[in-house]
Amino acid sequence: MKLNRNWIEQSAAKLDADARNSALARQGSLTKPPGSLGQLEEIAVWLAERQSNEFPVVNKVWISVFAADHGVMAEQVSEFPQIVKGEMIKNFAAGGAAICVLANALDARLEVINLGVVNEPGELPGIVQDQIAPQTHNIANGPAMTSEQFSQALLSGKRAAERARAQHSNLYIAGDMGIGNTTVSAAMASAYLKMEPEQLVGPGTGLDAEGVQHKATVVKQALACNRANCATPAGILQSLGGFEIAAITAAMIRAAQLGLPVLVDGYIASTAALAAVRINASIQDWLYFSHRSAEPGHVAILKELKAKSVLDLGMRLGEASGAAVAVPLFRLACELHNNMATFAEAGVSKG
Amino acid sequence: MKLNRNWIEQSAAKLDADARNSALARQGSLTKPPGSLGQLEEIAVWLAERQSNEFPVVNKVWISVFAADHGVMAEQVSEFPQIVKGEMIKNFAAGGAAICVLANALDARLEVINLGVVNEPGELPGIVQDQIAPQTHNIANGPAMTSEQFSQALLSGKRAAERARAQHSNLYIAGDMGIGNTTVSAAMASAYLKMEPEQLVGPGTGLDAEGVQHKATVVKQALACNRANCATPAGILQSLGGFEIAAITAAMIRAAQLGLPVLVDGYIASTAALAAVRINASIQDWLYFSHRSAEPGHVAILKELKAKSVLDLGMRLGEASGAAVAVPLFRLACELHNNMATFAEAGVSKG
Repeated sequence: MKLNRNWIEQSAAKLDADARNSALARQGSLTKPPGSLGQLEEIAVWLAERQSNEFPVVNKVWISVFAADHGVMAEQVSEFPQIVKGEMIKNFAAGGAAICVLANALDARLEVINLGVVNEPGELPGIVQDQIAPQTHNIANGPAMTSEQFSQALLSGKRAAERARAQHSNLYIAGDMGIGNTTVSAAMASAYLKMEPEQLVGPGTGLDAEGVQHKATVVKQALACNRANCATPAGILQSLGGFEIAAITAAMIRAAQLGLPVLVDGYIASTAALAAVRINASIQDWLYFSHRSAEPGHVAILKELKAKSVLDLGMRLGEASGAAVAVPLFRLACELHNNMATFAEAGVSKG
Repeated sequence: MKLNRNWIEQSAAKLDADARNSALARQGSLTKPPGSLGQLEEIAVWLAERQSNEFPVVNKVWISVFAADHGVMAEQVSEFPQIVKGEMIKNFAAGGAAICVLANALDARLEVINLGVVNEPGELPGIVQDQIAPQTHNIANGPAMTSEQFSQALLSGKRAAERARAQHSNLYIAGDMGIGNTTVSAAMASAYLKMEPEQLVGPGTGLDAEGVQHKATVVKQALACNRANCATPAGILQSLGGFEIAAITAAMIRAAQLGLPVLVDGYIASTAALAAVRINASIQDWLYFSHRSAEPGHVAILKELKAKSVLDLGMRLGEASGAAVAVPLFRLACELHNNMATFAEAGVSKG
């Protein structure tokens, strides 16, 4: 099977300067000192520019969570066994996972996409089956994906963004479920940012100092044995990434091409965002970063992308949960922007 | 008129250690790595301990906004003229102000209390009339309030918290509308924290460097001429505060006594919180700080109270708007805590 990847190079949708200017003018006319709503003003204008609408809305939020397993788990880089992944997919199907609760509370559409896990849970209601393989190859001794696997992961993400667009979503979120993927993200960040693994590796969901050191050693090994594959941005993603990270990367690129603003989740999604921007720089305008985790790799990526995140709550769960928690702030930003009185309407002196 | 102030000294309601322990145990049983929801976990447990309920809720939020004018405006410490205050009260009554839009979006109960403004707007629907005087005395040449005015302001705040409790609110927010009150807050913070005005004075809603320097000079003058009145925590509030700050202080103390958790807004409300804690230390357990503004005085107060705020969005509007924006995070914290599946319910291995 030879899959066409040309779509990845296409430019992102154009921003609407007129909508931006109208929204900026409106912000200046509202009954408050200029700038006093801080980042909420920026968010409203950011959305207006991308939705081509002076009065932006965030009433249709689409969340894709991609689940996959990682061959690098053979190197004992996580406290959690791989068996948990299949069980967690069942938990997603039953609505018990954090992102299920959040999506329900936010009235957002949630899709869980199974890209392949070791402890396969079988057919489950509401789970999209895009299985590629039970897990990626162990990056500590070779490339994570074959060319065909890589194309399949990208296409899964592309289709997810297209489904979101087809349902007229106005904000898109992609998240991960992948035990072992902070190791993979550190390897990718190290390759993209040309930084030493020791500067980027952190405790993930609960490693001690010795565990962190071991993780750095594994990352170094992965970088050494994949050096030849890492000459291009896409090569880094294919050889050091994971199925879910490749899918998130593709979903972000496709969303930007379709004119759908993207709210980026935490460390793993930010690594995918970095890959997406390196592969197709035009899409960066369509990304807003939701939260800052304590992982050093995440901090480095946000700095590289000059990202101004919304929240800093010490979250480190993944599952798109950090981005979901930021959704109400985007909604309130729109409410304020659309519904506050102007000085003229209220008969208030402008000072 | 001699008003009884003994109620201020009464202890805050007791925390419920059993509810806290149950909530902590529940957090540990949910299908996520321990601690991975960061501050959202702390918020759920904090609410459980105060609501005496393993499953806390934030469905009834009460917001009191106290409006008042400041005599220190005679010293030209703000870009905005006092005339705006009366106009803004009309805007509150008409639902056009930021906090009106937020309260509506959050389905929260909003009460605006007019403690007296120079440009008196007259009777307006939905505005509580607790007028004390058109404005406080100019603190640059004497105490802000007479003893009777101070008692009236405190009682207005006390009654507001009691109304909130009577309606079974489960989260209480008090905010300010008071042009000139960053100057007043800086004077109070300087007296309470024994710090130099230069370390605490900032641009408020838009002063330049020269304006900031002038503000610091005014604060120094206020501290010098009120030195004799500042021997007690209540004396500082009476002589350097404002009607709205005294009312917020009293509202927080009363809410804590009634067992109603308080979400503290920005700089002005945090100054009131500092006064409240200095007057009655027992109430500190009932305060959660919502956001961090850029004003240096605010940063110093949050540090003194060891406050961990939720948001840092560069907001500086007042009106309780920062606390209101944090409400959805408190609600999502409860949703996750109450509705996620436990490992046992989901049949997921605990790792």
